[in-house]
Amino acid sequence: MRMVDLIEKKRDGYELSKEEIRFAIEGYTKGDIPDYQLAAFAMAIYFQDMTTAERAELTMAMVESGDQIDLSAIKGVKVDKHSTGGVGDKTTIALAPLVAAVGVPVAKMSGRGLGHTGGTIDKLEAIPGFSVEIDTSEFTQLVNKNKLAVVGQTGNLTPADKKLYSLRDVTATVNSIPLIASSIMSKKIASGADAIVLDVKTGSGAFMKQLDQAKQLAEAMVEIGKSLGRDTMAIISDMNQPLGQTIGNALEVKEAIEMLKGEGPEDLRELCLTLGSHMVYLAKQASSIEDARQKLEDVIANGAALKVLKTFIQAQNGDPSIVDHPEKLPEANFKIEVKANQSGTVSAIVADKIGTAAMLLGAGRATKESHIDLAVGIVLNKKIGDLVSPGDSIATLHTNNENVKKVIDMVIEAYSFLDGEVGKPTLIYDEIH
Amino acid sequence: MRMVDLIEKKRDGYELSKEEIRFAIEGYTKGDIPDYQLAAFAMAIYFQDMTTAERAELTMAMVESGDQIDLSAIKGVKVDKHSTGGVGDKTTIALAPLVAAVGVPVAKMSGRGLGHTGGTIDKLEAIPGFSVEIDTSEFTQLVNKNKLAVVGQTGNLTPADKKLYSLRDVTATVNSIPLIASSIMSKKIASGADAIVLDVKTGSGAFMKQLDQAKQLAEAMVEIGKSLGRDTMAIISDMNQPLGQTIGNALEVKEAIEMLKGEGPEDLRELCLTLGSHMVYLAKQASSIEDARQKLEDVIANGAALKVLKTFIQAQNGDPSIVDHPEKLPEANFKIEVKANQSGTVSAIVADKIGTAAMLLGAGRATKESHIDLAVGIVLNKKIGDLVSPGDSIATLHTNNENVKKVIDMVIEAYSFLDGEVGKPTLIYDEIH
Repeated sequence: MRMVDLIEKKRDGYELSKEEIRFAIEGYTKGDIPDYQLAAFAMAIYFQDMTTAERAELTMAMVESGDQIDLSAIKGVKVDKHSTGGVGDKTTIALAPLVAAVGVPVAKMSGRGLGHTGGTIDKLEAIPGFSVEIDTSEFTQLVNKNKLAVVGQTGNLTPADKKLYSLRDVTATVNSIPLIASSIMSKKIASGADAIVLDVKTGSGAFMKQLDQAKQLAEAMVEIGKSLGRDTMAIISDMNQPLGQTIGNALEVKEAIEMLKGEGPEDLRELCLTLGSHMVYLAKQASSIEDARQKLEDVIANGAALKVLKTFIQAQNGDPSIVDHPEKLPEANFKIEVKANQSGTVSAIVADKIGTAAMLLGAGRATKESHIDLAVGIVLNKKIGDLVSPGDSIATLHTNNENVKKVIDMVIEAYSFLDGEVGKPTLIYDEIH
Repeated sequence: MRMVDLIEKKRDGYELSKEEIRFAIEGYTKGDIPDYQLAAFAMAIYFQDMTTAERAELTMAMVESGDQIDLSAIKGVKVDKHSTGGVGDKTTIALAPLVAAVGVPVAKMSGRGLGHTGGTIDKLEAIPGFSVEIDTSEFTQLVNKNKLAVVGQTGNLTPADKKLYSLRDVTATVNSIPLIASSIMSKKIASGADAIVLDVKTGSGAFMKQLDQAKQLAEAMVEIGKSLGRDTMAIISDMNQPLGQTIGNALEVKEAIEMLKGEGPEDLRELCLTLGSHMVYLAKQASSIEDARQKLEDVIANGAALKVLKTFIQAQNGDPSIVDHPEKLPEANFKIEVKANQSGTVSAIVADKIGTAAMLLGAGRATKESHIDLAVGIVLNKKIGDLVSPGDSIATLHTNNENVKKVIDMVIEAYSFLDGEVGKPTLIYDEIH
């Protein structure tokens, strides 16, 4: 078999066999097939797409290129959740204790990564003492005991995906549905998930700006998951404005805690209940989606979810008193109001700009070496549909640096206003099964 | 400027600016831009094509990536001819003295290369003593004096094209009209041509199997040439069977000499007169194509073309007596007839198979290191439209090895027969101006 023939076959729109996809990915991982051939291959895939069978095989070839996490010592159906990423998305922190409280085992492997704020692990590390440095057997025991534990990514997971992603990043082949879908699904499957709930974001602040693109990606991932024997479903959710009110690590932890107390913004609560009810249902802890949702509402109302959160924090050396006293979370030295200079109804908040503004305050990493300031970030006081008068605070900057003129300008630029009423945007556009 | 942005721009179907194309090609030639980015770029071009302006700029960027031959010391309009390659194509050897005899300066830089037979230089070296090892000033003087000289490729011509071609070869991006056209045109322009006549082959033995593909390539090259200020035209000629009767180095020289004597196969004569009349016209040595053709027929009839050939051979240390005594050319030890085992009319001769058969006899190079046997080759005794009875010789193998069963089988396989009449194939399908 020669790689050049496989590139040509894909270029000409033919379906590659399992053996051909294995040959390409195994050869590339080993270094027998050079970057330039994979670059041309990826561009051919960009134009010619892949069939479901090809996508599934690509996913499994990437899964098997490295280590696979064995979660078989954990009882029950392990359901993982994945979001394609948005601004202010603290869902995992609220959702994990929420579904654990109804009996879903949550064995979460999470990352740091680059972006507007840190990853889930960075956010959790805003909790004093909290550590993700636990070994595999402790991780398993904790999940069996408390239904919830979070570790940092360990082992050499999906090296083929890492290598291919780096290459795609510099060859304009990132934006390809089959390649994105197999990349995400390979990581979920290598992490040991039995079932997967996907949150595909769409809108100005999402990678998939258009709803139809987001649906295509969701369908692609659900198809891959199902053809590889993993119960998989996706929701399409809105990212035309940041989720909830907070963007920043400690700020987001605080908002997640509020949600578990039955407080906090409605959009965060609704997204958690929607994703959570599908997780509970796929984990066979409820007889229907409605039943699952009721159980989730119950564990919020009766405090069980909050209790799981405390147990979880304590088990990983964190200070559980922050749950009742969120003021113990790191706080920024300055709170600076961003004031409206006009009246009207908020009609849009460009999520990317808010995210970048938060990163400029120090909430996220621009490069791997950047230091994150866990205390800083932005609280949005006005969201789409809210009325604003000149002088109203539209947002509060939490910052350790008073020189934030540029950030203020960026937040103001992110907001658009209209005269008259503006409806609240749809939060959940669709479900893909 | 970042290469990844240019790949994306091309991927999305936008036209690249001159500066962008320069950036890509100069960066790639210097090694600042890696193979994997050019591979993705080439595949994006494969799918999205290039505009005429982009093609011209790509051509010039490749021309200027290396040395350019300065033919300004040679008087007159330097017209170069290029063929996209076929089996039995000895046109250059006949055409060069033919047009030189009517006053067109022919400063031919030629190559060896891989293939069924050697390149033009290999073929000329079948003439005892003939050498292409002449320096630039001698080359210029010879063309000014005799109107014809041939040298081997010197200098570092179009290194960007060489590097890109090697990459395309292993990334399934060879077969792209804009990339083929700019590759060919860059070499012609770097070689110093003022005007260019292109012979684009089509048919089973050509790179462009389909007439419409061949036309597209011809149009692309003519457009590039014209937009870069070189008078350029192309003909589309047939390669559904080998050209003329001979395939093999000395055998082809002999057939070219016959053509200049007014003998030899009609298709070779017609192709030389067609290409030659356009060369003469572009070199402004005739007032019309018809006038040019008449002049060419005259120099064949009055022996002037043959005289130029002799002078040319002598000037480059060859033995001019081979012109009157072609039996002095290298001859193979064995002549083995390939006999028909059926009756019928020849309906097809797969040129590639005949070429490969000639290479197996030793007429061509499979790798750069292969040794060419200048004496060996194949003479086709029957061509499309000829009647054959069982036992007739359809071809004669000229070989230095009697063990040629495999070659005989291959030649027989290359022939197809039909009952009834089969018309001679069209030789010249079209002209592109």
